[in-house]
Amino acid sequence: VTAPSSALARRLAFLLEADRLKRVERQSSITGGDRRENSAEHSWHLALFALVLADHAPDDVDANRVVAMLLLHDLVEIDAGDTFVYDEAAHADKVEREQAAADRLYALLPDDQASSLRALWEEFEERATPDARFAAALDRLQPLLLNHANHGEPWLRHGITADRVRARNAHIADGSPDLWAAARETIDDAVAQGWLPEE
Amino acid sequence: VTAPSSALARRLAFLLEADRLKRVERQSSITGGDRRENSAEHSWHLALFALVLADHAPDDVDANRVVAMLLLHDLVEIDAGDTFVYDEAAHADKVEREQAAADRLYALLPDDQASSLRALWEEFEERATPDARFAAALDRLQPLLLNHANHGEPWLRHGITADRVRARNAHIADGSPDLWAAARETIDDAVAQGWLPEE
Repeated sequence: VTAPSSALARRLAFLLEADRLKRVERQSSITGGDRRENSAEHSWHLALFALVLADHAPDDVDANRVVAMLLLHDLVEIDAGDTFVYDEAAHADKVEREQAAADRLYALLPDDQASSLRALWEEFEERATPDARFAAALDRLQPLLLNHANHGEPWLRHGITADRVRARNAHIADGSPDLWAAARETIDDAVAQGWLPEE
Repeated sequence: VTAPSSALARRLAFLLEADRLKRVERQSSITGGDRRENSAEHSWHLALFALVLADHAPDDVDANRVVAMLLLHDLVEIDAGDTFVYDEAAHADKVEREQAAADRLYALLPDDQASSLRALWEEFEERATPDARFAAALDRLQPLLLNHANHGEPWLRHGITADRVRARNAHIADGSPDLWAAARETIDDAVAQGWLPEE
């Protein structure tokens, strides 16, 4: 049995460790394009997406659970780093790296809370529930909007083509048909503007 | 009456505008101390605090509402900038600057959503409900922990004394007695370490 004061101390240690997510750089840049987005501010942006776009989720989605899931979804990157969605090689050992990170990070919390929060992250990763599919849709839509706003960065830098963007993001439709329609419009406009080569 | 597609377009425009919060610098630095924290990653960190520390809130606090409040609480800084908690001069016109910012930003959303989200932000500002008091307690506790981790920055840079820190943060007790105890320990330890002059 953990005493209350000790539970609080463990929670605060976890929250200080979480601060390191602010150092993890993603491939997308913030609007304006002058620096990369980090995974902490990305997680804030996604949680705000969940709050604001809740009306576009299927009826069985619990927006509060989706917000919580998105606050946690990238924490493992503190140890495992960000894996670019189009980097096939890095995806080979992504699960292993992230499980090891989750083992270390969630163990900082009191046991019961470690289990419940890790379960929420695992649910996100498995994308098998409506909440997780909606969260995953937001996680794909947000960089599309940033990359469009930044005139094709980082697509142009990495030589990504429109067919790969469509294939990698098609699961947005499983989370929210409305948001997949918006994503397709964004992709088509990026192609029309010359910010995303068709092939 | 707003058509659904147009409501979605307004929500996405709001979310892209919100991206600019990633450019607003605060006085506290991230752990390690090598750069300032921005208000977007700060907002993520606070929402995670609310999720993880919910057991230390009074029974009548709704943690999900607190999370939503904290995701929104600094958005007005996109126009109004961050106001350092110990900067008395800047506090003179803070309310006016932030109300003008809220007028512009929330108007990007569909009307009904603009009203409900702005009301949540106003509730945070007024600190008159248990949810708002708990949110405000987290908003004060987090920089204390960062400043302690960074050996007194930015307190030392600005010549802030412990009595001012105690006075400015005493309202943490209204949000959560547990967290005020943790805050007092943090302040006392910073004094003992020489990171925060008693006077």
